[in-house]
Amino acid sequence: MRCGIDIGGTKVLGIAVESNPLEPAAETKTRTVYDKDVLIESIIGVITGLEHQAGKPMGSIGIGIAGIVDRRGTLRYSPNIPGVVDLPIHEIVSERLGRPIRIENDATTAAWAEHLIGAGAGSENMLFVGLGTGIGTGFVLDGTLHRGWNGFSGESGHMTIDKNGPVHLTGARGPWELTASGSGLARLASRFASEGKLDSVVELAGSVDEIDAEHIQQAVEAGATDVLDLLDEFAIDVGIGLANLIHLLDPEVIVIGGGLVDLGDPLLGAIRRRTESFVLGGRHRPAVDIRAAKLGSRAGAIGAALLAPDPTPG
Amino acid sequence: MRCGIDIGGTKVLGIAVESNPLEPAAETKTRTVYDKDVLIESIIGVITGLEHQAGKPMGSIGIGIAGIVDRRGTLRYSPNIPGVVDLPIHEIVSERLGRPIRIENDATTAAWAEHLIGAGAGSENMLFVGLGTGIGTGFVLDGTLHRGWNGFSGESGHMTIDKNGPVHLTGARGPWELTASGSGLARLASRFASEGKLDSVVELAGSVDEIDAEHIQQAVEAGATDVLDLLDEFAIDVGIGLANLIHLLDPEVIVIGGGLVDLGDPLLGAIRRRTESFVLGGRHRPAVDIRAAKLGSRAGAIGAALLAPDPTPG
Repeated sequence: MRCGIDIGGTKVLGIAVESNPLEPAAETKTRTVYDKDVLIESIIGVITGLEHQAGKPMGSIGIGIAGIVDRRGTLRYSPNIPGVVDLPIHEIVSERLGRPIRIENDATTAAWAEHLIGAGAGSENMLFVGLGTGIGTGFVLDGTLHRGWNGFSGESGHMTIDKNGPVHLTGARGPWELTASGSGLARLASRFASEGKLDSVVELAGSVDEIDAEHIQQAVEAGATDVLDLLDEFAIDVGIGLANLIHLLDPEVIVIGGGLVDLGDPLLGAIRRRTESFVLGGRHRPAVDIRAAKLGSRAGAIGAALLAPDPTPG
Repeated sequence: MRCGIDIGGTKVLGIAVESNPLEPAAETKTRTVYDKDVLIESIIGVITGLEHQAGKPMGSIGIGIAGIVDRRGTLRYSPNIPGVVDLPIHEIVSERLGRPIRIENDATTAAWAEHLIGAGAGSENMLFVGLGTGIGTGFVLDGTLHRGWNGFSGESGHMTIDKNGPVHLTGARGPWELTASGSGLARLASRFASEGKLDSVVELAGSVDEIDAEHIQQAVEAGATDVLDLLDEFAIDVGIGLANLIHLLDPEVIVIGGGLVDLGDPLLGAIRRRTESFVLGGRHRPAVDIRAAKLGSRAGAIGAALLAPDPTPG
């Protein structure tokens, strides 16, 4: 049995997998901690917890983590896990547990999962784009997981699309994830609401200040038209970034994951239209297939389990 | 003997290669024509010309062309060769000549040349960025030439970096090549000159309206300080785009080619500084090596010759 652990900016999800990753033998959730030593203990705790639940040892461990991870399994830097830099997770955890481990960025592991058993199955050139609090991406190019020189490939959320734009918490001006992520949608919704252009959502929330993702979701499900205008405007920046990825990497399929994918077809349709409008020579090239992810919030953990090394023979 | 042909937006360069691509047995230049039929005749003419010069038939043909070329060797669309769309060059030329042919984008062939025998030799993760009239790029990832689903990979010049910026001749707002190419530098120089901030260059040119690349080059060589300010300002947008490529693809080496590379270290130094300032987590990742191309304006043709198929045995 092997396990896959996804360490995001707020939550840690661990699953234990015997054979079918879609039916984990055990599952455990906890909060992400922003301290080096406590983070290591928390990883060990998740593994131990899975072993108790599953009643079996984890023969190998796969970890996906929100941040840049080098090929030695050291977390170099993460805007989402402040305070934890240059942490040699691979070295420490494998010393403590004596079992084979592989560590990658969490969008990279999610991309691999969607490629092997999710929405990207069957395509050799597939990009995974996770629209969550920020934007994380992972690339499958010519059938293999692209990691880059250091293992830092796929940090598309930090791609500048608005060089004179507002400053992100990273200090960069106008990066893609500032406006095209869940946080970007929340800010845009506030603006729309305070301009009186989002009454359906304000009504559900009670007041402009109380709007959250849930209310946007409810308004979409109720078929409110003002929320469709919101999604269409939001999709502009998503589309600009996706068109950039298409110009650079010429994928066949783009799988959209992350929390925002729950908004369903109204959002995906707007993203498809907007993206197409930004791709140069659109009439002379086949359209890229933009699909919703299949594995939901478990994609990162499933991919981590799929990437976990073969257990060393006892 | 094989030949390599680079069809750019203004010039066509053909070389005939026996064994060492750096010492072509023959070379021929002509102007690019913007008509389907004439373009085909011009390609045949270049090949025939090389055969006359070299005194031998060309056993196989490699072509790099400025535009998006699919895996069947059809030029789908080219902003640089207006009026020529959906032209099945591979099919027509191989039918006419009965010899093996391979056709790729010209920045893709240049990337391959710089990777095999140029400035990128020894690196498995190398991006070629040609700063010319526009920007063309080609990617070597994990040691192989990346072509993408259709063969359209590497169209980085069309990447949006300024979503509210001015409109390019392609119709797009704020693409990278609008401000970070040779044309972008020329526009910036005009602005600097008309604001009285580029006297060294204006003096060499005679008047603001007569400034061209040659005068900028001369001012750089004369060590004028105002032209260094120009290059430093220009390097901002080059650096924004390069940082985007670094975030996405995590290369070890970026090879800068195209006409602008003749501006030498003053430009490259500014590009290195600016790029580094835009890369997130810079202190926690090794610096990318940004180098000048080695093969100059012949890179595209050399790469085309290197990619030409093995001649079919007579």
